[in-house]
Amino acid sequence: IGAVFASWMGKRAVSYRRIEGIPAEWGTAVNVQAMVFGNMGENSSTGVGFTRNPGTGENAFFGEFLENAQGEDVVAGIRTPHPINESSRNEQSKNLKSLEQLMPAAYKELAAIRAKLEKHYHDMLDIEFTIEAGRLWMLQCRVGKRNGLAAVRMALDMQKEKLATKEEAVMRVSPDQLDELLHPILDPKMELGTKPLGKGLPAGPGGAVGMIVFTAEEAVKWKKEGKNVILVREETNPEDVEGMRAAEAILTARGGMTSHAALVARGWGKCCVVGCADVKIDLKARTLHLGGATLKEGDWISLNGSRGFIYTGKMALVEPGEVTMQMLQDFLKFCNSIRALKVWTNADTPADATQARMYGAEGIGLFRIEHMFYGKGSDAALFQLRKMIMSKNLEERKAALNDLFPYMKNDLKATFKVMEGFHVTVRLMDPPLHEFVPHQKEKLEELGRALGISYEELEHRATALRESNPMMGHRGVRLGVTYPEITEMQARAIFEAAAELQKEGIKVFPDIMIPVVSLENEVKNQTEIIHRVYAEVMKQKGVKVKYMVGTMIEIPRACLMAGKLAETMEFFSFGTNDLTQMTFGYSRDDSGPFLNDYVKKGIIPVDPFQTIDQDGVGELIKITVERGRKTRKDLKIGICGEQGGEPASVAFCHKVGLTYVSCSPFRVPIAILSSAQSQIRNPRKNK
Amino acid sequence: IGAVFASWMGKRAVSYRRIEGIPAEWGTAVNVQAMVFGNMGENSSTGVGFTRNPGTGENAFFGEFLENAQGEDVVAGIRTPHPINESSRNEQSKNLKSLEQLMPAAYKELAAIRAKLEKHYHDMLDIEFTIEAGRLWMLQCRVGKRNGLAAVRMALDMQKEKLATKEEAVMRVSPDQLDELLHPILDPKMELGTKPLGKGLPAGPGGAVGMIVFTAEEAVKWKKEGKNVILVREETNPEDVEGMRAAEAILTARGGMTSHAALVARGWGKCCVVGCADVKIDLKARTLHLGGATLKEGDWISLNGSRGFIYTGKMALVEPGEVTMQMLQDFLKFCNSIRALKVWTNADTPADATQARMYGAEGIGLFRIEHMFYGKGSDAALFQLRKMIMSKNLEERKAALNDLFPYMKNDLKATFKVMEGFHVTVRLMDPPLHEFVPHQKEKLEELGRALGISYEELEHRATALRESNPMMGHRGVRLGVTYPEITEMQARAIFEAAAELQKEGIKVFPDIMIPVVSLENEVKNQTEIIHRVYAEVMKQKGVKVKYMVGTMIEIPRACLMAGKLAETMEFFSFGTNDLTQMTFGYSRDDSGPFLNDYVKKGIIPVDPFQTIDQDGVGELIKITVERGRKTRKDLKIGICGEQGGEPASVAFCHKVGLTYVSCSPFRVPIAILSSAQSQIRNPRKNK
Repeated sequence: IGAVFASWMGKRAVSYRRIEGIPAEWGTAVNVQAMVFGNMGENSSTGVGFTRNPGTGENAFFGEFLENAQGEDVVAGIRTPHPINESSRNEQSKNLKSLEQLMPAAYKELAAIRAKLEKHYHDMLDIEFTIEAGRLWMLQCRVGKRNGLAAVRMALDMQKEKLATKEEAVMRVSPDQLDELLHPILDPKMELGTKPLGKGLPAGPGGAVGMIVFTAEEAVKWKKEGKNVILVREETNPEDVEGMRAAEAILTARGGMTSHAALVARGWGKCCVVGCADVKIDLKARTLHLGGATLKEGDWISLNGSRGFIYTGKMALVEPGEVTMQMLQDFLKFCNSIRALKVWTNADTPADATQARMYGAEGIGLFRIEHMFYGKGSDAALFQLRKMIMSKNLEERKAALNDLFPYMKNDLKATFKVMEGFHVTVRLMDPPLHEFVPHQKEKLEELGRALGISYEELEHRATALRESNPMMGHRGVRLGVTYPEITEMQARAIFEAAAELQKEGIKVFPDIMIPVVSLENEVKNQTEIIHRVYAEVMKQKGVKVKYMVGTMIEIPRACLMAGKLAETMEFFSFGTNDLTQMTFGYSRDDSGPFLNDYVKKGIIPVDPFQTIDQDGVGELIKITVERGRKTRKDLKIGICGEQGGEPASVAFCHKVGLTYVSCSPFRVPIAILSSAQSQIRNPRKNK
Repeated sequence: IGAVFASWMGKRAVSYRRIEGIPAEWGTAVNVQAMVFGNMGENSSTGVGFTRNPGTGENAFFGEFLENAQGEDVVAGIRTPHPINESSRNEQSKNLKSLEQLMPAAYKELAAIRAKLEKHYHDMLDIEFTIEAGRLWMLQCRVGKRNGLAAVRMALDMQKEKLATKEEAVMRVSPDQLDELLHPILDPKMELGTKPLGKGLPAGPGGAVGMIVFTAEEAVKWKKEGKNVILVREETNPEDVEGMRAAEAILTARGGMTSHAALVARGWGKCCVVGCADVKIDLKARTLHLGGATLKEGDWISLNGSRGFIYTGKMALVEPGEVTMQMLQDFLKFCNSIRALKVWTNADTPADATQARMYGAEGIGLFRIEHMFYGKGSDAALFQLRKMIMSKNLEERKAALNDLFPYMKNDLKATFKVMEGFHVTVRLMDPPLHEFVPHQKEKLEELGRALGISYEELEHRATALRESNPMMGHRGVRLGVTYPEITEMQARAIFEAAAELQKEGIKVFPDIMIPVVSLENEVKNQTEIIHRVYAEVMKQKGVKVKYMVGTMIEIPRACLMAGKLAETMEFFSFGTNDLTQMTFGYSRDDSGPFLNDYVKKGIIPVDPFQTIDQDGVGELIKITVERGRKTRKDLKIGICGEQGGEPASVAFCHKVGLTYVSCSPFRVPIAILSSAQSQIRNPRKNK
């Protein structure tokens, strides 16, 4: 008893109280309790158990025990524990007698208590018990830990068994647990016993195993030869996209959670580890150094993209099965019936859109119109785009835009079709044009021939486009204002695609979104063009498509001007990546190194590109919602930044009254769960 | 009368009313008035005049007239007008009889009216009169236009003559007129008759004439040979600074009002035109193409940096004289006795500080500690800095910092000394480190030898520092958090310099300013270091220097967090360049081209880097002031961005209650005038 009180005044307890703000006057309590003994002979024993199987979620009592032993003996691992019943048997204990066999009466009593406990707590419990001379004593019970699969199965079962309400079932599964169901993972048992070679940022979920390659070209080539590869790069850029798709996973030495590699990989639900600064790549020797080891091209590595670990060698992978997917669907139905926040998806291709719909996405919150210029099959369209970019005057540009038009229209049509009946938010061209200028001399020369101008002239034009801070340069709506013909072509592609589908009987709801806005006049200027093109196209096609024009809110000034912007704009969508960049003055491409250091030193609690910074960015979001809805009461407001699929950010979006969150397809289930949980915690009306 | 009413309903009048929002119901008025005739014979005449000389400001009636003529004849320029009196004679009219000689009675009457008018209006007037058959009729009077010199002289004289109060005198001079007094200008008469070859942004005031050179090296070389040169560059960077200083003026093809060239030139009060996109430079041929002409190295051009015009050939320059400077001082005394807002200066050198004090600056609001690494004589210090930057570990870096220390301390001491008795706000290292990494191979090799590492290794380290958006990268306080030893060295240099001067009896008030802050913990972290170093240095030197620690407010998040930041920070200073960049998402290096287009198309009323955007950036400033002073009632708040010397911005700073504005030395008089005028328009108490 003295020892307990002494510990209350101990140095660690005092500083803990100081940090947590607990007054010393509260004092501490001492429980005085009789001890029971499991080591009183053959009719005594001690055991631990779970009221259901924590590995599979099965509704079967699960546990182990030791005869004539105390609690610590079970944990110590010196003697092999016995199973409490048949369903608890494993490889090691298959020939040992169970508690049910040895002490049927005590087991029966225990089983009854198990049922009683679950009925009381509405959850799976972790219990400890002791049998002293034939008499059963319960030592403790607490909520039991479980993996993702088990969590979902238990939630579903308990609701069926009327042990839990639908709301309780939804609260029983954490977003991380749900994520486990969506991707293959490294075999947890193998991973547990292996020391990682290094650690980076967990940028893309799940596990992956493959052979090291150092270039996108090699990745594609090896993949064709049937090899599984992991692409290791200093950092990636849009020209690597083919290789990234071919690879099982991506590992980069530089870049943060929203670097190019991270964004692309997360969009695909592909395993990815970024910003592992300890990786030293020697491209000439085709080797990498990490954690004292030197690995060469073709060597096997394993990545845990959910935690950022890198291992040498080839670990086993565990894949989600069909039963799992069915459980997932059933569980998401519960969530859907509860949540107030809508869940949309960021999708640029019919494949992504299909995937997201399967998970329950109710619209596309971000279709990046320029993404047709990246990746597989983009060569022809990209070439036309490059011609347009390199045009010197209006005629050259208009000609190039005409050539580009059919590509864009077809691309849009394909995704519109998949999203039949749902809104598709098409973001107009966003990145600075020079991002599409080829770096290789041959490509530049080819372009020069097509345009009929010299290599020198073309190089001169390319140089003129370069910017020292492209993130804050000539991009987004600024392109549309300078070159109205670019906006016009995009609007025409969107409306023609929609009109033609509507004539085929396919319902399409295009929402046109203007990016990088900071001024009221920017949206007025662009909206005029869009409305004019709409009228022209509808007249020509003889139909009426429903559409909206809205803007990304991604520049601090746009937040402050939200009241004015809402006069013209019919919806808002927060681009929280850019908004975070501008609000903090953090370039997401360059902030990795110091942000890691900041998190380590406690300067910032968490990387604001991963979860919304509620104090700063969050205040701007609140200001925007308030001012926007003051002007336009029913303003649709969403979020399409990376944080749209992150649980804490979803909770924030729910709280401030957004209409929807939009995230990459693989995050849709997580967003659905998070928004249902948010509604349970803080109920709100639908918007 | 019918014609007047008809004009009210005319197309132009109708659309003018629509634009200006004037209701048509207001109607228009028709004055019916007898006409007088100046063409009724020899004893009739018509003339115009100014109650004082509008060119020199002299208190002498000034005008011209024509006998037997109507008003339009005087203006038409067919007959040479006569002077009204002796003081109005010029080259052309020196032999003509004056009004005073021809019609002494009418002249006497006119002179009496002139005195009466000035007494009534308290200003110099522009009058029109007619003498009909010996009888004088006054046709109209209005405030007369005048140049800068005349405006100041009249203001001073009228106050002496008790025709105007001090306040009226201060209101009689516009900031632009004051600016005319500070710089040599292109001869206005010559400029009037010459068509400019092209137009860029007016980035540095006054006029300049010189021979074209295309590199900084040539500029320095030609200057040594006694030639006046104008440096023409695509854009400038810190390595051009020597050449920029040697040149009479700078002309660039790229960059906006706050590009490197513009910032440096304005700081020096040097003529500069930037962002003239029509200038095509051919470095190989050493020629430039502009407005159809091809100019080569050594050709003369003339620049008007106040308006952005470029002319071929060598125009005459008009320089401010000693009398002018005395009048300026007298006028500023008036302003000083009125204003509530303090005026400080941005100065990095003793020369700039001296200049600013001469104009009346009451402190330094921005001493950029890293500016000792730019320009003349910086080679040795820069070399030490580069060694520091390229250090791989703490020991290497500390050794380099030790070598750097004496340079920094001496540099600080020199400016502290000049600013005796005043606050000097020293901003800690701001730019990303890679900005100082040499581009030339030889320099890199030299550095490698000094550090004892290979060229390859050095190049590798340099590459690792490169950023894709350096403006939002690893800079400012982020460097200080990552490398506390850099902050420590700077604090030590500041405190040792101050302590040693104080021991010599020189009063110094160093204010340490932390840049690029967005988080409360950043300033806590840095302040701890600064306070610790302070205690160490003071103990060692045996004195106590008064000092403050504050922060730049230049990141939107810092504005929102102002209440929290003020818990630790003793002063704020708005860095409106960066704050504008982040609030709009405009890179000041890249926004020139589209911002010009925006202004032309009316998307934005004015370049927000020139004058504070009151709706957006201004709201953030107001939020900051309100939240900061809520936490710390007497918080000193200033502005040290480029807009600190711009009249509309000064008026805004006055209105929102800032303590001071700080601007480059040549803008100090303008800020003094603007703040006095602001106080007259909207009186407030001192802060």
